[in-house]
Amino acid sequence: MLTSYIAATPAFADGTDTPRAFLERCLERVAAREKDILAFVETAFDRARQEADAATARWKAGSQRSTIDGMPIGVKDVIETIDMATGMGSPLFTGWRSGRDSASVMALRSAGALILGKTVTTEFAASFPGPTRNPHDLARTPGGSSSGSAAGVAAGFFSAGLGTQVVGSIVRPASFCGVYGMKPSLGGINRLGSHDFMSQSCQGVLAASLADAWQVLTEIASRAGGDPGYPGLVGPALLPSARRPRRLVFLETTGWPLLSEAVKAQMSEALDKLRSAGIEILGRSDNPEVEAVEKAITTSLEVTRLINAWESRWPLNIYRERDASKLSKDMRERSAEAENLTQAQYRRALEKRASIRAAYAKLAQVADGCVTLSAVGAAPIGLDSTGNPAFAVPGSLLGVPALNLPVLNEAGLPLGLQLMGYEQQDADLFALARTVETVVGVA
Amino acid sequence: MLTSYIAATPAFADGTDTPRAFLERCLERVAAREKDILAFVETAFDRARQEADAATARWKAGSQRSTIDGMPIGVKDVIETIDMATGMGSPLFTGWRSGRDSASVMALRSAGALILGKTVTTEFAASFPGPTRNPHDLARTPGGSSSGSAAGVAAGFFSAGLGTQVVGSIVRPASFCGVYGMKPSLGGINRLGSHDFMSQSCQGVLAASLADAWQVLTEIASRAGGDPGYPGLVGPALLPSARRPRRLVFLETTGWPLLSEAVKAQMSEALDKLRSAGIEILGRSDNPEVEAVEKAITTSLEVTRLINAWESRWPLNIYRERDASKLSKDMRERSAEAENLTQAQYRRALEKRASIRAAYAKLAQVADGCVTLSAVGAAPIGLDSTGNPAFAVPGSLLGVPALNLPVLNEAGLPLGLQLMGYEQQDADLFALARTVETVVGVA
Repeated sequence: MLTSYIAATPAFADGTDTPRAFLERCLERVAAREKDILAFVETAFDRARQEADAATARWKAGSQRSTIDGMPIGVKDVIETIDMATGMGSPLFTGWRSGRDSASVMALRSAGALILGKTVTTEFAASFPGPTRNPHDLARTPGGSSSGSAAGVAAGFFSAGLGTQVVGSIVRPASFCGVYGMKPSLGGINRLGSHDFMSQSCQGVLAASLADAWQVLTEIASRAGGDPGYPGLVGPALLPSARRPRRLVFLETTGWPLLSEAVKAQMSEALDKLRSAGIEILGRSDNPEVEAVEKAITTSLEVTRLINAWESRWPLNIYRERDASKLSKDMRERSAEAENLTQAQYRRALEKRASIRAAYAKLAQVADGCVTLSAVGAAPIGLDSTGNPAFAVPGSLLGVPALNLPVLNEAGLPLGLQLMGYEQQDADLFALARTVETVVGVA
Repeated sequence: MLTSYIAATPAFADGTDTPRAFLERCLERVAAREKDILAFVETAFDRARQEADAATARWKAGSQRSTIDGMPIGVKDVIETIDMATGMGSPLFTGWRSGRDSASVMALRSAGALILGKTVTTEFAASFPGPTRNPHDLARTPGGSSSGSAAGVAAGFFSAGLGTQVVGSIVRPASFCGVYGMKPSLGGINRLGSHDFMSQSCQGVLAASLADAWQVLTEIASRAGGDPGYPGLVGPALLPSARRPRRLVFLETTGWPLLSEAVKAQMSEALDKLRSAGIEILGRSDNPEVEAVEKAITTSLEVTRLINAWESRWPLNIYRERDASKLSKDMRERSAEAENLTQAQYRRALEKRASIRAAYAKLAQVADGCVTLSAVGAAPIGLDSTGNPAFAVPGSLLGVPALNLPVLNEAGLPLGLQLMGYEQQDADLFALARTVETVVGVA
């Protein structure tokens, strides 16, 4: 039920469709399914309707503010909004109002986008899950931490949702919910005004198509830039043209042994299709640089966890002091673990991360990008875990752009193919993704 | 009236002095002079007295929490505190409570330090000044933006004040008020929980002595680390031993032509003293790398202003939308300037900054560090400007540690000598500073 806004916009100019009518179709789906899916924490439908009318008038007059003028968007509830509370998935922040829009939300509004509501996040965008269910099977997790943004796109509630990723929080729920998901290069999208302060954290997007994902990212970046000190995402004003890669690296990661035989077979089939299209696939046995990367990234989760724990020592210590009973057991354990770490351990972890990044950077001489899975399988049953991050965590640690394409499945449930690119080459990753999507085919 | 806490601590162990008595002496000075100096926005003296009693008991029992257990500290009012509002020097934030301590304040409290109050900052730590006056001459500015922290140390209200610097906001007020001031290497001190988000921003300290400055920094860093992704300040548990530099670079910066003849003569005299102590001084005419750095840093202010403007586009746009009448004319102009910038201009400024940093980094092969002035003269008369930042801005742009030594004067008013070191070599800069302070002599 993916509902691309970008695909609808040509009809806005000739009057056969309108942003207001598009919004109403979204709201009908919300009315029908939100009671089961629980993607939203809070909504702002009245404001959205008013703004959709204004966008309708602008498109008719040919004076739309941007390519996403009138697009309905969900905002992960760690990202601040002036008109809605920012609850962070924590009882410590229920109803907390920052009194401002984040840099990204401010940019989206100035591009004319409609902020439909705040979407469910795990506690502080970490692992303790919220109530959201997977639209493809209500008994299953939508993944996390950007749970509501992924589920909302999958259910056709909105065309794009803002998310954040520090381990697997965009790529994994995108895979489980069968939507497009893009974690940009480190610093690609300004994350000021978001509870998203770790050194691997990125703000990104879950979306109904590659075009919706690209337009949201580029409309934010051109107005709000990237993180302070980073050049920020750049590229063409419209979705980059398809580019056929000469070579792609296939990465097994630590996730490969965890796959079912059926998923392994599907991945092999996808690789065969790429080969048939004239794209050379390099695996660990084909090239020493690939083998070096495979070895280097085996520690991705361990290094990421140590870095994240040290970097979240504060504010967890202050939250714990305020009211420890309002932190999940998970979070209290993470805080205790953080208090046992030393600055020296953290420095060693940073050095380790730098060496893994250096190994990966060498691949740029070898291939146009990497292809792997986005998750170890379809969304698991139950809402108590957001799933294994084995395939998503390397992209987070490496700081490179990572994109989920919803082109595979396991027993009829969505499963994503993941493309990983090189730092600052986000636009090129979209160009490659267009080719890969066409070759492998939509699920 | 500099009142070192570290110098007093030996007497706490033998009972001839106590943290509570130290605090009461500070509070007597506050009672006598705060009505004229206006260093504080809000105070927490009752809590401080209770905590001073607890610290007194710990020192007597030999179980003090740290080297700064019981130290009275002022906190610049852009840094969050759980028990006091964080007003940011802006009517938009008067009375605003974040409900938490910043990472640095949390660390200071866990080390036993007393947070005496919030100190006056310019509007959002930029240029529009607050009411604070210079303790050495009430008709003069204390400098800014860390105005209250500098004036409070100078008046003996507290032994150390937290400050932040993105242009000249620690080094300049330290110079004007005759106190020690240290802006660490980029990322040296964790600035989470502070309105201090720009890529050149640093949290640092104004203090009554080198020892007070070092102990505050190291007690924070060992508990809260540096900024996420940065190794953070490291060094010995106690003030590094003095080290005599073999060579120092003398930097004129763009400030030299603005100096009075008397100040130039004093600077020359200081350099002569260093030479007499066997330290070689390299100027721009002595060495091509020094000349290259002098040329490169001429654009420091221009590049810094462009970078800061783009990076503060948000939140200024959201503040302007909320209530433009509550922003100073200065800030509204800065916001308008920011809105006219493009991401491409910002990227070019980042590249320019990187090239200036690369030129400076070569000096590490040439000399142990750099010496220059901290300001173009003593504090100017009037409270409407916080003074010229010509000497302080290169250290901010370069991201290197910069330290003000209060060892010069202009017509009896304080003027500082500035030492600049190399990235991550903060401890070594303290070691050099001990030698330079002894050789040049206390003002």
